[in-house]
Amino acid sequence: MRRDILVSEVGPRDGLQSIKSIMPLEAKNAWVSALAASGLREIEVGSFVPAKVLPQLADTAEVVAHALTIPNLTVAVLVPNLRGAEAALRSGAHKLTIPFSASETHSLKNVRRTHAQMFEEVRGIVALLRSQPVERRPLLEGGLSTAFGCTYEGHVPADHVVRLAEQLCDLGCDEIGLADSVGYANPAQIRDLVVRVRAVTGIDRFAGLHLHNTRGLGLANVVAGLEVGVDTFDSSMAGIGGCPFAPGATGNIVTEDLVYMLEAMGLNTGVNLGKLLEAREVLAAAVPNEELYGYVPAAGLPLGSRA
Amino acid sequence: MRRDILVSEVGPRDGLQSIKSIMPLEAKNAWVSALAASGLREIEVGSFVPAKVLPQLADTAEVVAHALTIPNLTVAVLVPNLRGAEAALRSGAHKLTIPFSASETHSLKNVRRTHAQMFEEVRGIVALLRSQPVERRPLLEGGLSTAFGCTYEGHVPADHVVRLAEQLCDLGCDEIGLADSVGYANPAQIRDLVVRVRAVTGIDRFAGLHLHNTRGLGLANVVAGLEVGVDTFDSSMAGIGGCPFAPGATGNIVTEDLVYMLEAMGLNTGVNLGKLLEAREVLAAAVPNEELYGYVPAAGLPLGSRA
Repeated sequence: MRRDILVSEVGPRDGLQSIKSIMPLEAKNAWVSALAASGLREIEVGSFVPAKVLPQLADTAEVVAHALTIPNLTVAVLVPNLRGAEAALRSGAHKLTIPFSASETHSLKNVRRTHAQMFEEVRGIVALLRSQPVERRPLLEGGLSTAFGCTYEGHVPADHVVRLAEQLCDLGCDEIGLADSVGYANPAQIRDLVVRVRAVTGIDRFAGLHLHNTRGLGLANVVAGLEVGVDTFDSSMAGIGGCPFAPGATGNIVTEDLVYMLEAMGLNTGVNLGKLLEAREVLAAAVPNEELYGYVPAAGLPLGSRA
Repeated sequence: MRRDILVSEVGPRDGLQSIKSIMPLEAKNAWVSALAASGLREIEVGSFVPAKVLPQLADTAEVVAHALTIPNLTVAVLVPNLRGAEAALRSGAHKLTIPFSASETHSLKNVRRTHAQMFEEVRGIVALLRSQPVERRPLLEGGLSTAFGCTYEGHVPADHVVRLAEQLCDLGCDEIGLADSVGYANPAQIRDLVVRVRAVTGIDRFAGLHLHNTRGLGLANVVAGLEVGVDTFDSSMAGIGGCPFAPGATGNIVTEDLVYMLEAMGLNTGVNLGKLLEAREVLAAAVPNEELYGYVPAAGLPLGSRA
């Protein structure tokens, strides 16, 4: 019995929002289909933000509609506020993540809201979702961004993150995730903060880790997360993406390298690495001017590898 | 009390042997001095191989002579055979590492010797060193290369590596190290093989891990090594280097990123990251046509970082 790990692909959202190219809808749909065909079971396909803020994601509702036709795929979207959640609800997405910056300065820069204002948004979203029949009610994740540090505030105290996690649970978020939006986390900090946050959320309501590779520690942080029992990791195909509002913060961890590492370790992602590299070709063809990252795509698999 | 970790810099040997540029002796000496000034306590400064094989390292004896003038620095060299060990002994180096390929195919390609022939070399070297007065006797490490897999043979069975470690101990090597020469290792394998090899060498005779970042798992493998108590890691400034005889195997783990990660985790390397980046400038000036790697040098330190 191999331990199951969920690799949650965020490239179509976190990746595409931070590159200059605007991928046409047909290419997005083809890419999402190719990602799902590789065995990825959860994909964050877009974000319900105003088109003037992120024109790259203006067709999120259409991408969701396409993704919902793919069997056994959890279709996730990002929503920055109640208005976004209303659109997400109309789209039929299975899962909504509201990013909540542990750093209030980052929150003000990123979504122009204080923590108090963000709590109001969360309250509104929870009320909206609870007004829906249970069978149509999407899951709501509170994604604590800058949980491991902030480019504006520097150190973010763990106690502060734990308290926010507790408050988001109390407000009715189904799950809480931790995001190293700016690539500040280290493996010791990952272990410490996961254990402390999970102590207030419980294991079932801990959503997992969203990591960036800004300082090359992305997969090292995954190993630390695995050690303390984390079983869900966000990653982005080819490592495209980052946080446009956090200077110097570039690139999610690379899905191809993450899947290779997990499978090589004997863990079960359900992802076929060959098919994943085919999905990378679909991406490469759609954004020919963007830099794609990843060590395994460059070096190839080890001789005799079963991954 | 912070746990001490020894970062053993191998750039002047593993790095310089696999780039095209030949660094002049003066530049090498300046680089070694800058590396030591950052707080690195052990540097592998060269290799005693015939100049026609590795002209980049032809002046190893002179580099050793310079390095020996630096206080509190362990001056290490690589020796492929008895003849190299004789030259190393004459040079006055403190530590000799003989690479021993766990894969016999790799051994034949790398040093044109079978395992039986390599055992003979080790016997000869041990006899040579034991003929010296104790106070002039350098330490001998048997470095088990391709210990985690081989580009020619693929999988290398752990039992086989453990047996070789035992044989090298029996022959009189002071320490045994494990090298992922071709970037095949994964964190689960690191944990498993370290524990098994250390069971035969004992903790005191386990020299540490030599890792490459070919598939992006270098620092993830360090985290796994730390978990099982490894306290010595080889790395190369700017990640230059690799194994010229193992196709597709490029780049040691990057000293700058390794030191950053370890210090951020609260471990003590004794290395000053600012001075380490100054040493990188010395390297960059000396080999202007070579590509330098590293995430931390590119992204900078996190705001408020104490590393």
